[in-house]
Amino acid sequence: MSKPSVPQGTRDFSPVEVRKRQYIFNTLRTIFELYGFQPLETPAMENLVTLTGKYGEEGDRLIFKILNNGLNAQTDEYKAKMNDEWSKILTKNYSTPVITERALRYDLTIPFARYVVMHQNDLAFPFRRYQMQPVWRADRPQKGRYREFWQCDADVVGSTSLINEAELLCIYQGAFHQLQVPVTNKVNSRKMLAALAEICGMPELMMDITIALDKLDKIGWIGVAKELQERGISEEGIWKIEQVINVTGDNNAKLAAYADIMQHSATGIEGINEVSKTLAFYNNLADGNWQGKIEVDISLARGLNYYTGVIVEVVCSSDKVKMGSIGGGGRYDDLTGLFGKPGLSGVGVSFGIDRIYDVMEELAVWPEQLATGANVIILNFGGENEIYGLQVLRQLRDAGVAAEIYPDVAKFDKQMKYANKRGITYVILPGDEEREKGLVSLKNFSTGEQKMISVAECIEVVG
Amino acid sequence: MSKPSVPQGTRDFSPVEVRKRQYIFNTLRTIFELYGFQPLETPAMENLVTLTGKYGEEGDRLIFKILNNGLNAQTDEYKAKMNDEWSKILTKNYSTPVITERALRYDLTIPFARYVVMHQNDLAFPFRRYQMQPVWRADRPQKGRYREFWQCDADVVGSTSLINEAELLCIYQGAFHQLQVPVTNKVNSRKMLAALAEICGMPELMMDITIALDKLDKIGWIGVAKELQERGISEEGIWKIEQVINVTGDNNAKLAAYADIMQHSATGIEGINEVSKTLAFYNNLADGNWQGKIEVDISLARGLNYYTGVIVEVVCSSDKVKMGSIGGGGRYDDLTGLFGKPGLSGVGVSFGIDRIYDVMEELAVWPEQLATGANVIILNFGGENEIYGLQVLRQLRDAGVAAEIYPDVAKFDKQMKYANKRGITYVILPGDEEREKGLVSLKNFSTGEQKMISVAECIEVVG
Repeated sequence: MSKPSVPQGTRDFSPVEVRKRQYIFNTLRTIFELYGFQPLETPAMENLVTLTGKYGEEGDRLIFKILNNGLNAQTDEYKAKMNDEWSKILTKNYSTPVITERALRYDLTIPFARYVVMHQNDLAFPFRRYQMQPVWRADRPQKGRYREFWQCDADVVGSTSLINEAELLCIYQGAFHQLQVPVTNKVNSRKMLAALAEICGMPELMMDITIALDKLDKIGWIGVAKELQERGISEEGIWKIEQVINVTGDNNAKLAAYADIMQHSATGIEGINEVSKTLAFYNNLADGNWQGKIEVDISLARGLNYYTGVIVEVVCSSDKVKMGSIGGGGRYDDLTGLFGKPGLSGVGVSFGIDRIYDVMEELAVWPEQLATGANVIILNFGGENEIYGLQVLRQLRDAGVAAEIYPDVAKFDKQMKYANKRGITYVILPGDEEREKGLVSLKNFSTGEQKMISVAECIEVVG
Repeated sequence: MSKPSVPQGTRDFSPVEVRKRQYIFNTLRTIFELYGFQPLETPAMENLVTLTGKYGEEGDRLIFKILNNGLNAQTDEYKAKMNDEWSKILTKNYSTPVITERALRYDLTIPFARYVVMHQNDLAFPFRRYQMQPVWRADRPQKGRYREFWQCDADVVGSTSLINEAELLCIYQGAFHQLQVPVTNKVNSRKMLAALAEICGMPELMMDITIALDKLDKIGWIGVAKELQERGISEEGIWKIEQVINVTGDNNAKLAAYADIMQHSATGIEGINEVSKTLAFYNNLADGNWQGKIEVDISLARGLNYYTGVIVEVVCSSDKVKMGSIGGGGRYDDLTGLFGKPGLSGVGVSFGIDRIYDVMEELAVWPEQLATGANVIILNFGGENEIYGLQVLRQLRDAGVAAEIYPDVAKFDKQMKYANKRGITYVILPGDEEREKGLVSLKNFSTGEQKMISVAECIEVVG
């Protein structure tokens, strides 16, 4: 028998990992609910036709497809048909419906759009939903990149108001404040990027400029300028972009400088206006206690093509942590148009759960009580004392104290070893004297202190 | 464009459904933690080799298999190999590694066993874990049977103590007490069923007797007797079984009568002892407030072959609900032997989440606050009052009140229609007077009452 294992790129989550992840999920859930967002869950499987063609050619290749069941038909006709389909699969990277009609969820956005279209008559618009579920991608696994990973999205569809953008910035700031992760929220607008291409006289090269600018953090301005040149931007264009990049100051100063540079671009002015309006709404909505920073950053690009307005990104601002974006999002138009309902504008943000987890590990900002489950164990020496132990256990649990009993009558050492391995702080020893007096001997594992007290006192100490 | 849909047998969960389901999950999670059980999560995908052969021939057929990616190799050699594999698939119901090496989780038990074996050196035994995750089966969908459904299991491995059985009974009783679902817990032992076959002189027909007895509820004793005859049980055997079935009285009376009938079967006496010991432990552990009943029932069979000791089942005892088992479990030996670690005894129970949900719907026992999310909305009339609305909103949320603003400046009727469709009780109207005075006008949708009050008073009312 070979050693059992899990598929490459997937993970088991141990008790302590589940508790930490639940802490993140619960924190986000509480914030989403505070902001009037509603939970949604969609099936792990979608019809293949729902997913295909939505994520580009590369995306299509990375979708996990599910083999149809019942491939054991024995007729010659069926076999011939199957062989025909099979040869198609061999000649193209193409899965036919005979082989597979279903696939695993690749993100939460497309299932959300599908849901909105299916339920458009029942939903109250603007519809605000959050969704926290795993997605699957047949990517090559590597450090920090998994084939099964969790996405956590909050979106509003059916409203063009920039209050939504401001609310989503608040959700980011509020959530990371709660999680004790210091962050900077970068904000930009796709329209400002488009204007950058316009003022270079090359509006058709907007994506090229975006892609090059996105690397500013990694390769610096000299590197970006070289790439811009390779991508066909004129020298004058590169000079204009450099002007924009070099703008410094606070957000208002930056926006004023951009407005000056982009004064002849209607698109640019529109982009500047939507960012400054978003910030104005944000300032009225934001809690004064949050420590996070909002920073206008014209080099922020966000890869996905479907963004059309304000875009945002969150990075951890602690010096202790080297990590890219831990969240991002933006406004998109017409997502539901893919499924036959055009004209719904949407805006959404995503939390990178696995990266947030890693950042919190590095910063060591988990609440203490997550470390273990039950923090008290009753040892078991059999006979009447075992029964007495059960009665004590019942009283602890009735008082809401998570507690356990060692179920088997075993040697003291074995039971203590178990308690130690589990990381349990308190041990209750139910002996004859304790039973006769109706008391318990409570031992604190970390201090070594032991005292004989009433169950009520015991609940005070361990509860 | 065809209408978008979800795959047959799968479901979207709407906001209100997610909240209700989360309520069940959270209630169970709290109880499991109170009993010292630890959370575990395993990947949706397992290696096919982990799952194959574990669920019988029928089970193997119902496993959802995942198509390997990268089936686009163009070499003749590869094509020839693939054709060869393909013909195997056509002639047998057999999926070869070239096509599929991974499959979707079919239950939570086998992944748990796999996890225990993989982590046996790190785990503290007895290991108590709970797990609440979806599983997938390619069953024919029908009312109440889905292809994606949630299991919720709690198991203890590495302990033979019957305290575990008693704790699991407490978990059932405590959980359903909390959920306000009245239940009866049926208890039996596989050993008593084996003894029944022994005293008929046909120990080899134990499974036949079990299967027939399992139908007692549905077809009555006449029907069961007929089936026993067809399955080859002698007339004398059937008469002896009838004697056992006809035993009435409370649990102690029943067990005493069984002990009398089975006095010559060592297995039977062992089974009776384990049930009565379990009940004795249970009585010391049980909370006096629970209303649920524990009932020894020798006709309880539980389908799965791997049970070897005490078996349990939960049914809803309300007259208002017609529903089969909403949970069940039992003791099994050597589950981890499948993966190379023999000799670990285990006992576990399962909660049928979908059925529990349906029962709670019928009984209408959901807590009131689940009905909606945010229960207050601030209307939006633009301009300075919009900004004032945001400032009020911030104060509500800072006080922990889930609240929203209508993001767009829209007609009064449209905003009220939205609030109504969302089922929101309170509406805040930020007008000029309110803004100037620093107050809010709060309208209760259900009573129609409207008053102008301070934000602090407003928080009191809606919080």
